[in-house]
Amino acid sequence: MTEPDCIFCRIVAGEIPCHRLYEDDRVLAFLDIGPLSEGHCLIIPNAHYATIDQMPGDLVAACTSLIPRLSKALIAVTNAPGWNVLQNNGAVAGQAVDHVHFHLIPRHGGDGLGYRWPAGKLDTDRATELVAAIQAEL
Amino acid sequence: MTEPDCIFCRIVAGEIPCHRLYEDDRVLAFLDIGPLSEGHCLIIPNAHYATIDQMPGDLVAACTSLIPRLSKALIAVTNAPGWNVLQNNGAVAGQAVDHVHFHLIPRHGGDGLGYRWPAGKLDTDRATELVAAIQAEL
Repeated sequence: MTEPDCIFCRIVAGEIPCHRLYEDDRVLAFLDIGPLSEGHCLIIPNAHYATIDQMPGDLVAACTSLIPRLSKALIAVTNAPGWNVLQNNGAVAGQAVDHVHFHLIPRHGGDGLGYRWPAGKLDTDRATELVAAIQAEL
Repeated sequence: MTEPDCIFCRIVAGEIPCHRLYEDDRVLAFLDIGPLSEGHCLIIPNAHYATIDQMPGDLVAACTSLIPRLSKALIAVTNAPGWNVLQNNGAVAGQAVDHVHFHLIPRHGGDGLGYRWPAGKLDTDRATELVAAIQAEL
């Protein structure tokens, strides 16, 4: 599954260069060219899926099972005391390339990064409705 | 692997209630009690790991292979045009509970959520050094 106009499909195919960290027959990891911090990298499936809901679970698993190993290497190299794993779906969620990608973003104190967090409070009655509705779709 | 003082371990054990969406012998999904948006939920491993680098890859895979299915259900129920998958490691990265958890956060236009994104530009020489250093640790 390849989209001719997809920049990540073209990276997988070797038509566009990247700084490769890891690759196998299903997964590629490389440095983000617009890093939020040093070591910011991406893990992508070689096959083209626009959003994660469209992916087979085992391909998501193939991508994410690399995260522990790659995280350890990133921490060792950047000395980051923390990191975010982020995967955006849809333009409204900040997705800029329509080929699923997992960001690994090393974090340091005072870096000004992170997710905006205006937490609400879960209403119990509404939660019960939501659980029923979501489970009906699962 | 259980930590007696860990709120998520106690949720897994049934000592603290939660709004359960899904559970099996390795994984639990439930609504976040401090939601950023309606349907905001968490996927956690039943076993206690503080950060994702400490987890076996196959347990990460068990957690994340639920994401496509749960995402579809969340979208169906919330009509969200997008969503973020977020997993924070370390206090500096916004991790509030030291038991690995994957946030699924439904997104809507103008919701004011999302990750701060002051993108830099990857320096080619530095990238080459980084790739060598990270690959040496992989």
